[in-house]
Amino acid sequence: MRAEIVSVGTELLLGQIVDTNAAWLAERLAPLGIDVYWISQVGDNLGRLVEVFRRAWERSDLTIATGGLGPTEDDLTREAIAALLGEDMRVVPELEAELRGFFTRRGLPMPERNVKQATLVPSARVLHNPIGTAPGWWVEREGRVIVAMPGVPHEMRRMWQEEVMPHLRQRMGSAAIVSRTLKVLGPGESAVEEMVRHLIASANPTLATYAKPDGVYVRVTAKAASDGDAWERIAEMEAHVRAALGHHIYGVDDETIADVVCGLLRERGLTLATIELGSGGMLANVLGEATDAAAVYRGGLVVGPHDTGALGSAAAAVLAERGPASPEAAGTLASTAGERFHADAGLAIAAAPGPAPAGEAPPGTVHIALAWRGEQRAAAQQHRTTPTEVKRRAAMAALNLLRRALLETGGRA
Amino acid sequence: MRAEIVSVGTELLLGQIVDTNAAWLAERLAPLGIDVYWISQVGDNLGRLVEVFRRAWERSDLTIATGGLGPTEDDLTREAIAALLGEDMRVVPELEAELRGFFTRRGLPMPERNVKQATLVPSARVLHNPIGTAPGWWVEREGRVIVAMPGVPHEMRRMWQEEVMPHLRQRMGSAAIVSRTLKVLGPGESAVEEMVRHLIASANPTLATYAKPDGVYVRVTAKAASDGDAWERIAEMEAHVRAALGHHIYGVDDETIADVVCGLLRERGLTLATIELGSGGMLANVLGEATDAAAVYRGGLVVGPHDTGALGSAAAAVLAERGPASPEAAGTLASTAGERFHADAGLAIAAAPGPAPAGEAPPGTVHIALAWRGEQRAAAQQHRTTPTEVKRRAAMAALNLLRRALLETGGRA
Repeated sequence: MRAEIVSVGTELLLGQIVDTNAAWLAERLAPLGIDVYWISQVGDNLGRLVEVFRRAWERSDLTIATGGLGPTEDDLTREAIAALLGEDMRVVPELEAELRGFFTRRGLPMPERNVKQATLVPSARVLHNPIGTAPGWWVEREGRVIVAMPGVPHEMRRMWQEEVMPHLRQRMGSAAIVSRTLKVLGPGESAVEEMVRHLIASANPTLATYAKPDGVYVRVTAKAASDGDAWERIAEMEAHVRAALGHHIYGVDDETIADVVCGLLRERGLTLATIELGSGGMLANVLGEATDAAAVYRGGLVVGPHDTGALGSAAAAVLAERGPASPEAAGTLASTAGERFHADAGLAIAAAPGPAPAGEAPPGTVHIALAWRGEQRAAAQQHRTTPTEVKRRAAMAALNLLRRALLETGGRA
Repeated sequence: MRAEIVSVGTELLLGQIVDTNAAWLAERLAPLGIDVYWISQVGDNLGRLVEVFRRAWERSDLTIATGGLGPTEDDLTREAIAALLGEDMRVVPELEAELRGFFTRRGLPMPERNVKQATLVPSARVLHNPIGTAPGWWVEREGRVIVAMPGVPHEMRRMWQEEVMPHLRQRMGSAAIVSRTLKVLGPGESAVEEMVRHLIASANPTLATYAKPDGVYVRVTAKAASDGDAWERIAEMEAHVRAALGHHIYGVDDETIADVVCGLLRERGLTLATIELGSGGMLANVLGEATDAAAVYRGGLVVGPHDTGALGSAAAAVLAERGPASPEAAGTLASTAGERFHADAGLAIAAAPGPAPAGEAPPGTVHIALAWRGEQRAAAQQHRTTPTEVKRRAAMAALNLLRRALLETGGRA
């Protein structure tokens, strides 16, 4: 099936917003077996809209449009589809009642122009939108389909997931398509590819790797006659991927490394504290975003590169002797973190991002350390990238160091 | 002038990357007086590329293409333009020498297929790319123009700025177009619009407001016969905007609020420390990214919502009595920050983002406070948004509180 995506809105042509809807949809059409040949953005102009829809109608089996379904005179997607097909827009009483209900529940009068959001043409059926005022249209004639959805991303995504994708899946031969992303920290993308190379040739499920800011993603996508069968295929392939990558896999789908680490700490009844020296507050910030943070993260200390007074005299002495960006500094800071916040585990980053004064560690060198159960583990990283990126990678690596330690020792403290 | 943007690359049709180039270019074409009527994305396929370029050639005066200028067989933008015009691609010896020099300087052999990056058609002249291997093309025939630039954003942006924009400006009547963004924290977008309403009608310079994560932006754009004249117009309008918005303007263009605050502290020879309670490490992280942070930011303490032990007994007593999300807590924490880190000023955030236990402050309530020169200033904010957004706004508001205090007192401490 040959598909085309049309994003409607003059704000796209003025560069006021970036069209993320098109990429989001394109990413989801490919695994359905639907090929996207064209994507275009067009303004709120009836003539140009009709021209774009006519070309799409002629050359594509499926046109997916977003935007232009609002109540104003500038919202012309419905009008353009009606003009293309030579069909009349008519108010559908049930849709009008629904729309009026939406306003009534919010205690607002419905502006009369909004009634056009309750219309259909004869070839269209409604795509419901319980979280907004603009229902979508599924238009089908002569074996061709136009899907029109709202431009507001969360409304569009829900409509795709609940209303459009299931129809398309059925149309493409009832194949269920599901996918799972396994997230890896430690090895780089080419190393991960090497480790799963024997699985890459698999046609179903397929395997693809992506380098992302929080590690390498391995996405497994399976097709089958039913969801259950597709998930079974995923489970089987996931077992192979886990056998190949082992402990390098830190999480799946939307889990962050901070979520995973805080979850492990919570399971084991442990608490965590951090110290960051010369690396801003990236680690504290990332931990603060984790689901279980309030239960396990006791706190953190963020110290400027030359302000070691706040660390206490013992730690300051080590820093003075070994330099702030050293394995010894990181180890001492990790121990200090645990003591200072009365936490079971202490994590530390000692970094010299950006240009370093003579005699100090080279730019981008970061030392991370974990203090737990009276022992210290340390690691060093060197990156040639921006200071922000150096900090982010150090935070990820520190959390991964803790994750590995927690998994190795297992059970409760 | 009627313009069209074409982004080339199959990765766009697969949704693997979002097309940010098109929006970036569109935003810059509008102030040149060039209207963008169409934007489209097309894959690495010669037939479809020629079709897109042919339609653009027929309906638009100017086509701006990005991508497809690499050395591989998939990079077909040059081939498509040559096919459209019926012209032959020929190797240009000077370009070939430049290209070979690029590889020699990196100590690499040049793959022979790369020689196509040193070609031109008779209607094209070169757009230089000193930071990459792909020069662009400026193609002009029968009064129509196609500009082809690399898809790598930083290469494209440099080429636009240095090579394409000046030519287009000249073509559009030698008007110089410059713009300046004044950044506002405090009042919301509609309040800002109200305050500059008497200036909005201005045709040159124009004024536009945008709500952004770090405040409201007021962008002033001027056209004139020369850069100098345009900047004079900007300066005149900026004076009016500053008269209307006063101290609400915290910075211009790329300055962040953290940059501005750290710069003010540095000028005055002052240092800063922070404590964040129940709001993660957002403030420490934002400060760590600022230009002068190493010189003025002594450090920060990040404390979980129920782990007040690390704050010392005096502060813990206030927190126990007044609750962690209270003006008193924030004020005490601000004083504690200054004392603990031996810093001149202390900033604190005491937040209860997300669902709050019974009896505590309602979700999204944030107290911020500044302790400086023995005095405390405090403010409260309540937001109905995500916890991450609540934290970000609290960090911005805290920095703005300090900025205002520094400006009011002026001079050195």
